[in-house]
Amino acid sequence: VPSRAFAEAVARVPADRSVLVLTKGLDPVSGRRLSELVAPRAVAVLSGPNHAEEIAQSLPAAAVVASADLRLAALVQEAVHSARFRVYVNDDIVGVELAAAAKNVMALAAGGVDGLGLGDNAKAGVISRGLAEMARLGEACGARPETFAGLAGMGDLVVTCWSRHSRNRLAGELIARGAAPEQAEQEIGQVVEGIATAPALRNLARRLGVEVPLTEAVCAVLTGETPGSLVSSLMARRPTTE
Amino acid sequence: VPSRAFAEAVARVPADRSVLVLTKGLDPVSGRRLSELVAPRAVAVLSGPNHAEEIAQSLPAAAVVASADLRLAALVQEAVHSARFRVYVNDDIVGVELAAAAKNVMALAAGGVDGLGLGDNAKAGVISRGLAEMARLGEACGARPETFAGLAGMGDLVVTCWSRHSRNRLAGELIARGAAPEQAEQEIGQVVEGIATAPALRNLARRLGVEVPLTEAVCAVLTGETPGSLVSSLMARRPTTE
Repeated sequence: VPSRAFAEAVARVPADRSVLVLTKGLDPVSGRRLSELVAPRAVAVLSGPNHAEEIAQSLPAAAVVASADLRLAALVQEAVHSARFRVYVNDDIVGVELAAAAKNVMALAAGGVDGLGLGDNAKAGVISRGLAEMARLGEACGARPETFAGLAGMGDLVVTCWSRHSRNRLAGELIARGAAPEQAEQEIGQVVEGIATAPALRNLARRLGVEVPLTEAVCAVLTGETPGSLVSSLMARRPTTE
Repeated sequence: VPSRAFAEAVARVPADRSVLVLTKGLDPVSGRRLSELVAPRAVAVLSGPNHAEEIAQSLPAAAVVASADLRLAALVQEAVHSARFRVYVNDDIVGVELAAAAKNVMALAAGGVDGLGLGDNAKAGVISRGLAEMARLGEACGARPETFAGLAGMGDLVVTCWSRHSRNRLAGELIARGAAPEQAEQEIGQVVEGIATAPALRNLARRLGVEVPLTEAVCAVLTGETPGSLVSSLMARRPTTE
């Protein structure tokens, strides 16, 4: 999300109009959610497990439209719902936006598990603890934890960590095998959102005093730490209640 | 889970000893959770994304040990936790057991999405709505919804719906391509738990008055309905709030 291009696009929208945000991520400069940059305009966001490659083929999918203004969310739902695209309404815009941004960081970690050949159990473990981490940070920001168990949370997380279409997962795999983050991004030929989101997410968590061990680990690997040693230290953490 | 073999094994345990249940599923005759069959003995269950093929290779994994008696759960945690097997404690034994049983039914549905070639978005949609359905039914049984967002819920669900090791996912794929459930089970050469669990889960849901559209759809396909027509009718349901 190039902060400036987004801000310029928003600036062209009159203050009394509503904005539907289709982009996922945090502002890399300020770390703010994109809907915050749209204020004072009314805003809704659309999110969920929606790889564009499949939507373009008219394959079925489900999504969430979120807004603090449920009337606006219902308007968007009515406009975009179809027999091939099921749209659910949610009033937790904070949770939906944070989930959409954070899931790319977890996909880097899940791709790392693939790159290290640690297996599907470990990957599911990372995804589950990643979701718990996302929900914990979300709650500290005022989001509802249930949002993270839904389409914009676990649904989008799962497809990003497991689908063949996922750039962030692939980048994590390449980096775990020794590529520098820039090399991985170059090889993929598209922006890998998780790389910019990881430090923004970590800074947000530190500001709020929330423990985010997986996000911290991703940041460490992105700045040169060896992934293998991180796995051992994550596994050595004291296990707690769920 | 052959009800009688389980009951016979339990009968050999003195009433003042504790039992750790490692089997997943509902009793196919009574529909009860396995820990209920163990009463009055103290009981804990171990669950999570733990495909045996990978555990046998010493690949890392995480799991949950659940018991109404947290002291017993902590004892088990201490006994089985290691640097390769992270064990978290949870006091919601009802949620952990229901999730472990229901996820096999959702894996049949997810495999059906694969068999029909509907793509990863649709599969993530089925998994998300499947998790919501599991949590709804769990709550009606007295479970905590958060359990379903954890390792024994979404973690196990995800690996069962996406991993190459999953028999239930593969059975769903074969059935969606036209195989009868018995044929699919024969081709796989092992028990496919979801096939017996689906009607037990549906009966439980009906008794409690909980809507379980995905479980109902799986039961319909297992008794001969065409999967394609079910997808259309599921997609045509009125979308709601998440």
